[in-house]
Amino acid sequence: MKTSIDCIPCFIRQTIEATRYVSADTSVHEGVLRKILRALAGIDLDQSPPVAVQWIHRRIRELTGKHDPYRQAKDRFNRLALELLPELKAKVRSSPDPLKTSVRLAITGNVVDLGAKSGLTEDEVRLIIAQTLSEPFHIDIESLRGEIDRASSILYLADNAGEIFFDRLLIEELPVERVTLAVRGGPVINDATMDDANAAGLHEIVRVIDNGSDAPGTILSDCNPEFRRCFKDADLIIAKGQGNYETLSDEQANIFFLFRIKCVVVASLTGLEQGTNMLIRASKQKDP
Amino acid sequence: MKTSIDCIPCFIRQTIEATRYVSADTSVHEGVLRKILRALAGIDLDQSPPVAVQWIHRRIRELTGKHDPYRQAKDRFNRLALELLPELKAKVRSSPDPLKTSVRLAITGNVVDLGAKSGLTEDEVRLIIAQTLSEPFHIDIESLRGEIDRASSILYLADNAGEIFFDRLLIEELPVERVTLAVRGGPVINDATMDDANAAGLHEIVRVIDNGSDAPGTILSDCNPEFRRCFKDADLIIAKGQGNYETLSDEQANIFFLFRIKCVVVASLTGLEQGTNMLIRASKQKDP
Repeated sequence: MKTSIDCIPCFIRQTIEATRYVSADTSVHEGVLRKILRALAGIDLDQSPPVAVQWIHRRIRELTGKHDPYRQAKDRFNRLALELLPELKAKVRSSPDPLKTSVRLAITGNVVDLGAKSGLTEDEVRLIIAQTLSEPFHIDIESLRGEIDRASSILYLADNAGEIFFDRLLIEELPVERVTLAVRGGPVINDATMDDANAAGLHEIVRVIDNGSDAPGTILSDCNPEFRRCFKDADLIIAKGQGNYETLSDEQANIFFLFRIKCVVVASLTGLEQGTNMLIRASKQKDP
Repeated sequence: MKTSIDCIPCFIRQTIEATRYVSADTSVHEGVLRKILRALAGIDLDQSPPVAVQWIHRRIRELTGKHDPYRQAKDRFNRLALELLPELKAKVRSSPDPLKTSVRLAITGNVVDLGAKSGLTEDEVRLIIAQTLSEPFHIDIESLRGEIDRASSILYLADNAGEIFFDRLLIEELPVERVTLAVRGGPVINDATMDDANAAGLHEIVRVIDNGSDAPGTILSDCNPEFRRCFKDADLIIAKGQGNYETLSDEQANIFFLFRIKCVVVASLTGLEQGTNMLIRASKQKDP
């Protein structure tokens, strides 16, 4: 998808939040913000929103000298998710439709992320999970089930740290020998990298690769050749999180996007309401 | 007050809303936004937020060639307020404390403004008024009453069109022969100008002046000499709306600010919650 002018106030809000997260120095906040404003004046709106967000977070890392400012937050959220894993696994196993339950839980992991940067407790996360599971889900599980059965290669695109433990629940319901999991190639916000895939033990279950990019989404032209080959060859791609939707929604590929709609721009694009938990299929299918 | 970096996303959101309001051409929206972003990169944060908003709306008027883009909205809201005036007046008259009731209704007019740009119906406005009147008000009416009794000259600073009819209710409770009402000197958003004061019949009750400025607040250095003299000589100033608070909160004068707190920046500055309806006295009093 292209960037809407409505994304700009959000980019700026995110810039302020992120600089406050990585530095306590108000002159740093102001300096970064001025640089970002100047750059956004010339933004290419034909590119997807994560292109701007990638650029913003590179600048924040450069200007603050912090290579991976969200590492602590990611570790904390990984630990929290690890604690919850046994009971979530039990929920999947006792379900009459384990695939559907694991899809719902994977989307729930995307919701929990909303509070990942604040100090959520285990009980609060349990509450968010219970609330989210009680909400309607916009999913067509039978289409996904059919594609999983037919696919000889499945590429799973992870989204955030912590959330990746919820992805594990779904990945375990897939034919793991045919699955490749891809994570970001470098730190950006709290997105999952190889360390987080390992923390979730996913390297013991499926092949894990990194995409070579530090964008909070999947900008194919910015990814490494191995990832691009994997993407091209996959019969089925399961893409987690709104960032992957924003960057891949126009690709001609057999993609199922799993996420919660977190802004009005994507809501208007999908024709669904903000806050909808959903599994949606890419509109442009691969040529046979 | 100074401008916070948290005001910037809000300036940009307002720019987008305003350009969409005045033009249907998306290339105009984008062009204006890029100019505003470039300018905001160099913003002087020591100035109050309305300085930037004044600049933004001047650019929007220049770039769209519309001198008073909100005139229709202001007229519609004036008509709506005129319809409601008799029943609101009756409410004041039947009240055991007409001054207090008129202060509450004046603040309520500031709340109704939130929906002024959308097509609110009379019934919806009645509902907002009833809801607002049922909310707590943070007011110290006895301080204001004492100052009104003592003041030999009172300056009332209006805020928006429509809302100015609600101000009339309070103005009628003041010693009108000692009151001067000031409106903006030129169109900016839906702020009240001389036309709106006249529409509310205020010129028949009190002396009405314009401040010579097209800022959505009261930037003294931008106002005309007549207004500045009035401001300096007034024993009591009643300032309506958040814009007047933002521009005058640091002035050494006997000011009572009446407004609803509409953003987190002002909430944090006043130590009150966003959404609080209040009458607050300036912290810096005039030298005796």
